[in-house]
Amino acid sequence: MTLSGRLADGAEFDAIRAIVDGARASDAAVGPGDDAAVLADGTVVSTDVAVEGVHFRAEWIGDAAAGERAVRAALSDLAAMGAHPVAVFASLSGPDRERLVRAGIGVRQGGEAFGASLLGGDLARADGPLTIGVTVLGVLDGRRPWRRSSARPGDVLWVTGDLGAAAAAVATWSSDGVPSDALRDRFARPAPRFAAIDALRTHLDPRAAIDLSDGLAADARHLAAASGVEVVIEAERVPVAPAAVAARSPDDALRLALEGGEDYELLLAAAPSDVGEGADGGEDAVRATSGVPLTRVGRVGEGRGAFLLAADGTRQPLDGGFAHWGAS
Amino acid sequence: MTLSGRLADGAEFDAIRAIVDGARASDAAVGPGDDAAVLADGTVVSTDVAVEGVHFRAEWIGDAAAGERAVRAALSDLAAMGAHPVAVFASLSGPDRERLVRAGIGVRQGGEAFGASLLGGDLARADGPLTIGVTVLGVLDGRRPWRRSSARPGDVLWVTGDLGAAAAAVATWSSDGVPSDALRDRFARPAPRFAAIDALRTHLDPRAAIDLSDGLAADARHLAAASGVEVVIEAERVPVAPAAVAARSPDDALRLALEGGEDYELLLAAAPSDVGEGADGGEDAVRATSGVPLTRVGRVGEGRGAFLLAADGTRQPLDGGFAHWGAS
Repeated sequence: MTLSGRLADGAEFDAIRAIVDGARASDAAVGPGDDAAVLADGTVVSTDVAVEGVHFRAEWIGDAAAGERAVRAALSDLAAMGAHPVAVFASLSGPDRERLVRAGIGVRQGGEAFGASLLGGDLARADGPLTIGVTVLGVLDGRRPWRRSSARPGDVLWVTGDLGAAAAAVATWSSDGVPSDALRDRFARPAPRFAAIDALRTHLDPRAAIDLSDGLAADARHLAAASGVEVVIEAERVPVAPAAVAARSPDDALRLALEGGEDYELLLAAAPSDVGEGADGGEDAVRATSGVPLTRVGRVGEGRGAFLLAADGTRQPLDGGFAHWGAS
Repeated sequence: MTLSGRLADGAEFDAIRAIVDGARASDAAVGPGDDAAVLADGTVVSTDVAVEGVHFRAEWIGDAAAGERAVRAALSDLAAMGAHPVAVFASLSGPDRERLVRAGIGVRQGGEAFGASLLGGDLARADGPLTIGVTVLGVLDGRRPWRRSSARPGDVLWVTGDLGAAAAAVATWSSDGVPSDALRDRFARPAPRFAAIDALRTHLDPRAAIDLSDGLAADARHLAAASGVEVVIEAERVPVAPAAVAARSPDDALRLALEGGEDYELLLAAAPSDVGEGADGGEDAVRATSGVPLTRVGRVGEGRGAFLLAADGTRQPLDGGFAHWGAS
């Protein structure tokens, strides 16, 4: 994500607002407040930082895997703009040079897996946790970026892939368990959805998108706040990861899908005229041409905020998720 | 600086080599190994990380000043390529949210002072030192980048401004003294030399450049290694900052100018035919049109390595400098 002046709730966002308040106008096409910035020349840029003990633990995944995970997460912000990746830059700090090297190799290889070369960076000794900063650059090739702020009442909401597996891995580690290889892999190697971009443009023509880093609940709030709309997610339509259901109870897996975050799937808003309400054509065509599953999860309405609609028709505010700066 | 495969000595560089060894080929115009990378479309990018306790101390300069200093240092890498700045991205981590906000405001304002907008970033809680990662983007406007690797035997070496003041401030703080405001300012607010770029292109047409972050000795070694040449600096020509001489002994001030680093001036190599050996025209014209002083400090020769030529004609290897990863 990028620093943003128009964001949902949360202490981190208060801090970000304090930084960007009073910023001079820039000639960027998309400035602070979206998954990534878009420069006037169409270059798309995003920066993420992953801190040991906050975003990952050395006893969960090794240093190289932590580096690979950090760059995959950062690249996901480019996918959320509909951009394809070009280059990666890494800032690594920590007390142990060998660990920085392993993390740096992970960043390099993680970027290369998606066609993005590691072109620069910096290393620094620090008496603190291993800290992996990643800046990624991408290109739109003349296409329109998918902004957070462009969802409109009446749009249909879609989610790629399935949700909750990464959080189920974290929940298993946090209760001193050992997640299955499948769960661990979903945490360690999230897949930025570049493979689906061209199919999505062709068959869905999304108006708005956000990547699900903070969890469907929190990111639905971000989308609603940025677009000035109401987002309604239908509980029964949320694509909960089968591996999360197998490892946890169904209710817990749904909660993890909503609040756990770290899935790095895409939440997309598209006008219903493009695919039709409940049409099977859009998602089938996207899956057929890209291999990426697509699920209709809700609608955009007039109003403000994000809500979960239960099967019995009751609705409740979508809260929870995004605990990195939480009270704990 | 950027991660580099072709670098001078030092443990950090061994670590960087280990990361970039085996990197796939990219279509970047300038990849790892220079002050900044140049993408195929001419976008220039550099990443720096500044860590409390390593690059700055809270008792020396406040958090906002640390942020401002970090972005000025990163922007200097763009100036060293002959590029003008466009955008800034910040990655901030540390234990105290208020300190991150202050540092972030410093980054934003420091970038804006040079026309570069803060367009994105990330904040993270970390149980460790305040860590300020800055990625800067610039443009060449169709001009040729000044590479580290382009110095050729026979070139004349030039330095902008004067050297040693920032290191004199650090030396004073380190011996429990309080530096003068002038010295402190040279540490806290280094001036990336954008104002001189156009004048340098017109009057000197530099072939190669590097910014003096690690100290003239270490950066001369980097230039020599990247270009595969011998660099000879004449001791009597080194422009030692008067404020450093006033605060320290002349010998100590010269040592700080050579080894202290943090000056963020430019070391440039230009063919002698452009200005003539010892010509007054080049530096006078640059100063007159840009206000930036320029001093001829030595020559590039056949051979390898960097050397200091004393007034009595003796020469010694230029070592020292760049202690961030040192044994201390």
